[in-house]
Amino acid sequence: MNLHSLAIKCVDFELFLLDQTKLPHQEIWEKITTLPQMIAAIKELKVRGAPLIGVSAALFLAVMAKEGASFETLKKAAQELFQARPTAVNLMWAMDRMILKSVPKTSAELIKEAEMIFHEDVRLCLAMTKHGADFIHDGDGILTHCNTGGLATAGIGTALGVIRKAHEQGKKIHVYVDETRPLLQGGRLTAFECEKLKIPYTLICDNMAAVLMAAGKIHKAFVGADRVAANGDFANKIGTYNVAVLCHYHGLPFYPVAPYSTIDPQCASGKLIPIEMREENEVRGAKGSFGEVVWAPKNARGFNPAFDVTPATLITSFIFDHGVFNQAQLRMGAHLKS
Amino acid sequence: MNLHSLAIKCVDFELFLLDQTKLPHQEIWEKITTLPQMIAAIKELKVRGAPLIGVSAALFLAVMAKEGASFETLKKAAQELFQARPTAVNLMWAMDRMILKSVPKTSAELIKEAEMIFHEDVRLCLAMTKHGADFIHDGDGILTHCNTGGLATAGIGTALGVIRKAHEQGKKIHVYVDETRPLLQGGRLTAFECEKLKIPYTLICDNMAAVLMAAGKIHKAFVGADRVAANGDFANKIGTYNVAVLCHYHGLPFYPVAPYSTIDPQCASGKLIPIEMREENEVRGAKGSFGEVVWAPKNARGFNPAFDVTPATLITSFIFDHGVFNQAQLRMGAHLKS
Repeated sequence: MNLHSLAIKCVDFELFLLDQTKLPHQEIWEKITTLPQMIAAIKELKVRGAPLIGVSAALFLAVMAKEGASFETLKKAAQELFQARPTAVNLMWAMDRMILKSVPKTSAELIKEAEMIFHEDVRLCLAMTKHGADFIHDGDGILTHCNTGGLATAGIGTALGVIRKAHEQGKKIHVYVDETRPLLQGGRLTAFECEKLKIPYTLICDNMAAVLMAAGKIHKAFVGADRVAANGDFANKIGTYNVAVLCHYHGLPFYPVAPYSTIDPQCASGKLIPIEMREENEVRGAKGSFGEVVWAPKNARGFNPAFDVTPATLITSFIFDHGVFNQAQLRMGAHLKS
Repeated sequence: MNLHSLAIKCVDFELFLLDQTKLPHQEIWEKITTLPQMIAAIKELKVRGAPLIGVSAALFLAVMAKEGASFETLKKAAQELFQARPTAVNLMWAMDRMILKSVPKTSAELIKEAEMIFHEDVRLCLAMTKHGADFIHDGDGILTHCNTGGLATAGIGTALGVIRKAHEQGKKIHVYVDETRPLLQGGRLTAFECEKLKIPYTLICDNMAAVLMAAGKIHKAFVGADRVAANGDFANKIGTYNVAVLCHYHGLPFYPVAPYSTIDPQCASGKLIPIEMREENEVRGAKGSFGEVVWAPKNARGFNPAFDVTPATLITSFIFDHGVFNQAQLRMGAHLKS
């Protein structure tokens, strides 16, 4: 097993994660050897991005299998991993596919399955970004939120992958990057990726997109997804719903981008998606490899949902690997693979 | 001259400003003795809030007059102060009233005028907040942005003053405080004031208000203003327009609150309000008495307007000291004092 993406690598059955909490200032690879370490990496967002969480957890199970873990041990591990982040469905999808809803597999089969999940995610990114780039034209100002690039998938990304694809096609674009409080995935990670890829971008605070839309600087928005319901509603990083409302008001297209593994057909509507609530201290300041500051009064109560839900009524089209579906099609469940 | 508010004091013709960049962790009063010091205090937001900037600049001129500055010196000082922050009109209004558009005054007259400006601002706050509190009811969840309380005026505030008034009337309310990136006036200053006043509040990131509106937790929004145009459009802290769009989409009332001194009758529409652009480094991280962190790539370009403009079409009613004006009235210029 020799796999390598921007943020994970698996070499000779040793799994390494690029610690994303330390980006953009430090690029430190952490070797993951124990289940508690893997779970902590997910909870602390050392590894993040709905697709990449699923891929990395699958690879971790493959490493455990290679080391001789019993099926019972692997099943228990899969169940614990399953619960590490409650909103993103790709993790559950990967655990189901590896173990929880599959016939028992041999160690060799588990390794093969994890490799397939990795390679499939790479291909899904290519398919999504090919579809999505058709919606980008010369001169476009594009808003994106959170990070949905190579750091969030095994491939080139979902929403940021679409933007990258358009850039590689030679289209003259400018990306407005929401900093994405409180964990700053935009300001740290998307900015980091845009720098590496030399995609022209401007960093903005989350409250600045509206005025750029009113000024005609932003023409469309692309975002990722952590779970897509059967009716087309979807959960994504907190602040995504805000972006969707702003696009709606300004008459701008709003495109979420996700692989089929992000769809939860069992979830009838966005109202049923569980939303992970995180610690209040994340809202009282900022923390990372860059340091830790607390600007609010020490006892200030904070509200800190990791995700919000955007209703399908605010979606122009949902871009999947298996096709692009407009609002009417989403309502009919056309995005659900049979 | 013996004047004292939450953030400025003038004792025996010595002017002190509570350094708001150091709040909420440190309460440090800075004695202002020179014009460059006063201008820097305004530019660096040590003193801030459209009404308070005007009041403090007027008091500074009074101190200069007391110390024997000539009329020419005072006029030059007023012109320099006038330009310290280009958007908030109260500063220009105060400079005009003291010197630039007034008949030459004696030192004693200038001192009296500055005292009148201070006391008038206190009364204007009382009038605004009395009007505004009528719009608040038991059980209301109220969103506010930036800081518009005792730290922003000589009195109890504009928008936050309205909220304080309702709280003092015994109404059961809960305030959602936008942290207000990049300078965190909500997270630092409004949280500080709510703590002091024991007003129940929850701190949120600017991208979280939308989901609270969708969940029925926020019922209305009150914000301040830095300049009101003749057609009712107004400039206020960056992110205010975002709040206005969100209220509009969710069918929630949106109330700006300001004294008449914030109105610029010469300014026909919001499109003509000059917007101060601030340094890009403010967007790359956060800085204050709490420390300094830079989370973005060092060379990241940032967009950093200090204010945005909200069109009158998004206003439910504009609450002034001299009355409350709905959108139709604003369009007719009913808010302009003759």
